[in-house]
Amino acid sequence: METSTAGTAAGPTVGETGEFELISLITRDLPRPPAVSVGVGDDAAVYLVNGSAVTSTDLLVEGVHFRRDWSSAHEIGRKAVAVNVADLEAMGAVPVAMVVAFGAPADLPLQWAREFSTGLREEAATAGIALVGGDTTRAAQVTISVTVTGQTDALAPVLRSGARPGQVVAIRGRLGWAHAGLVALGRGFRSPRAAVDSQRCPQVAYGAGRQAVEHGAGAMVDVSDGLLADLGHIAQASGVMIDLDPQRIPVDEPVQAVAAATGQDPLAMVLAGGEDHALAATFDPDRVPDGWRVLGVVRETAQQERAGVLVGGRVWDGAAGWDHFPQR
Amino acid sequence: METSTAGTAAGPTVGETGEFELISLITRDLPRPPAVSVGVGDDAAVYLVNGSAVTSTDLLVEGVHFRRDWSSAHEIGRKAVAVNVADLEAMGAVPVAMVVAFGAPADLPLQWAREFSTGLREEAATAGIALVGGDTTRAAQVTISVTVTGQTDALAPVLRSGARPGQVVAIRGRLGWAHAGLVALGRGFRSPRAAVDSQRCPQVAYGAGRQAVEHGAGAMVDVSDGLLADLGHIAQASGVMIDLDPQRIPVDEPVQAVAAATGQDPLAMVLAGGEDHALAATFDPDRVPDGWRVLGVVRETAQQERAGVLVGGRVWDGAAGWDHFPQR
Repeated sequence: METSTAGTAAGPTVGETGEFELISLITRDLPRPPAVSVGVGDDAAVYLVNGSAVTSTDLLVEGVHFRRDWSSAHEIGRKAVAVNVADLEAMGAVPVAMVVAFGAPADLPLQWAREFSTGLREEAATAGIALVGGDTTRAAQVTISVTVTGQTDALAPVLRSGARPGQVVAIRGRLGWAHAGLVALGRGFRSPRAAVDSQRCPQVAYGAGRQAVEHGAGAMVDVSDGLLADLGHIAQASGVMIDLDPQRIPVDEPVQAVAAATGQDPLAMVLAGGEDHALAATFDPDRVPDGWRVLGVVRETAQQERAGVLVGGRVWDGAAGWDHFPQR
Repeated sequence: METSTAGTAAGPTVGETGEFELISLITRDLPRPPAVSVGVGDDAAVYLVNGSAVTSTDLLVEGVHFRRDWSSAHEIGRKAVAVNVADLEAMGAVPVAMVVAFGAPADLPLQWAREFSTGLREEAATAGIALVGGDTTRAAQVTISVTVTGQTDALAPVLRSGARPGQVVAIRGRLGWAHAGLVALGRGFRSPRAAVDSQRCPQVAYGAGRQAVEHGAGAMVDVSDGLLADLGHIAQASGVMIDLDPQRIPVDEPVQAVAAATGQDPLAMVLAGGEDHALAATFDPDRVPDGWRVLGVVRETAQQERAGVLVGGRVWDGAAGWDHFPQR
């Protein structure tokens, strides 16, 4: 999919101003919290990590993860941070430091890079993570690599393998909104606004991962590929069955609207749609934190039964995930 | 520069086998050292860092940092690790953990990815760093993002700003070889082999950064952009003059051979050629470690003089660096 938009008449391109101008606008006047002793400008960044270090990386490529004609540079900057920090949240870690590598064609308007940088910084500030370093290069597509590191502080991280029979499964965040937004955009619509905005940048509940650890979460995952796919990871890693109650699965208004307008199954959007970056976790039934919504239960696998996810006791038969290289 | 090579008849492509096969071949049977408590397979990796964490990232893009018709997949895998760990070496840090994001067109042969993965793992083993996580996606060009984290242990990191008048400047590693290799490859040659191999994958002296810390290095830098450019970073950050002795600058045989064959100035290749990832550091004159070669001295800036690098007391007038978005 080629979605490159050539530079416009609106000011100079990154090719015209050069790499150092680009680096400068991304790194100028960055805040440096006390934990960071060396930020941008040396061979590497240096910072303190309390407890174990927790690291995740994501590579966002134009035409695959975003389109410049669908999202503003500001939204793409915010999204690049949000989707990464969501992985730290899913471990129950506290965000600390972030490095960003940015590739762009020479005809990218510098103004695009400036707005991208603003979005990146704003979301980093919201997430409480410090931008400490990066890299820039030429590339045919706008290419954004973000790597985030957090700390466990005094608490153990929450893995996918810790779900226990008798616990409940709960989520915090939206389900299906980003996918509904993608469907709407794909048909040329710019509404419903809430769904489209969720596609352009997910709303990550920063701090919810920490809240889950403090409530003794057994297992936790970031819902990036779709609820069934990601709960499937918990079920398999923990060797349990997860059974969702269809009555409790939220089919929110923007999802209903897009499903109705396009003749799709709204439940499929909720169960299989990715990119909302809700958190899903298992808790003892009496320890579900405020703001989390219980969707189902964890039970042992029966004789002859493979660990997995059920909906109302049955295997759901829609598409369950997302594969960047779909098999033919 | 477009250098994409389409998939050949030699086996399936990553588009045919799907993302999970790709992830599996990169992550299968990875070694997990004791410091790593969670490796590949959860939302994020978890590992211990002794002292401060030291992090660096590099984005390598096909056609910019490598060409598939000039380098093997194995060499590109090795290079992706080497250029990153060199940044940790330049801080005097001990490598700990690495995450890799990999983008590829759907027609990339799976065999290419397999050989890339082997090179990545071999260089990681040599460098003593654990592959703990990553991401895969589609992309128009083969795109490799590597982020490495090291630890300072009990010693302070070596910054660019610590050079002191009275110290000497020394290097460990090659200068100009990788650039000579690039020139040779650009003219359609595959020799001199030593230069071409240096372009395909730099020889990083792993452990040399730690050796420099232990010998009280004042400042240190990874020579990635060229000796003058990178020593310029030390000079400016430290507010000093660095004066190189032209008699001491090594013009090695492969560099001489390429310069002679192409009518270029061999000294220019040594002073301005990048990508060899030698280490350059400043030491007190009586504390230069074994294996390091003294090239010049650090002195105070004189009245009216801007911090910078001289060769034989004079400003060198060739090209001093490399800019991914060269100004027109």
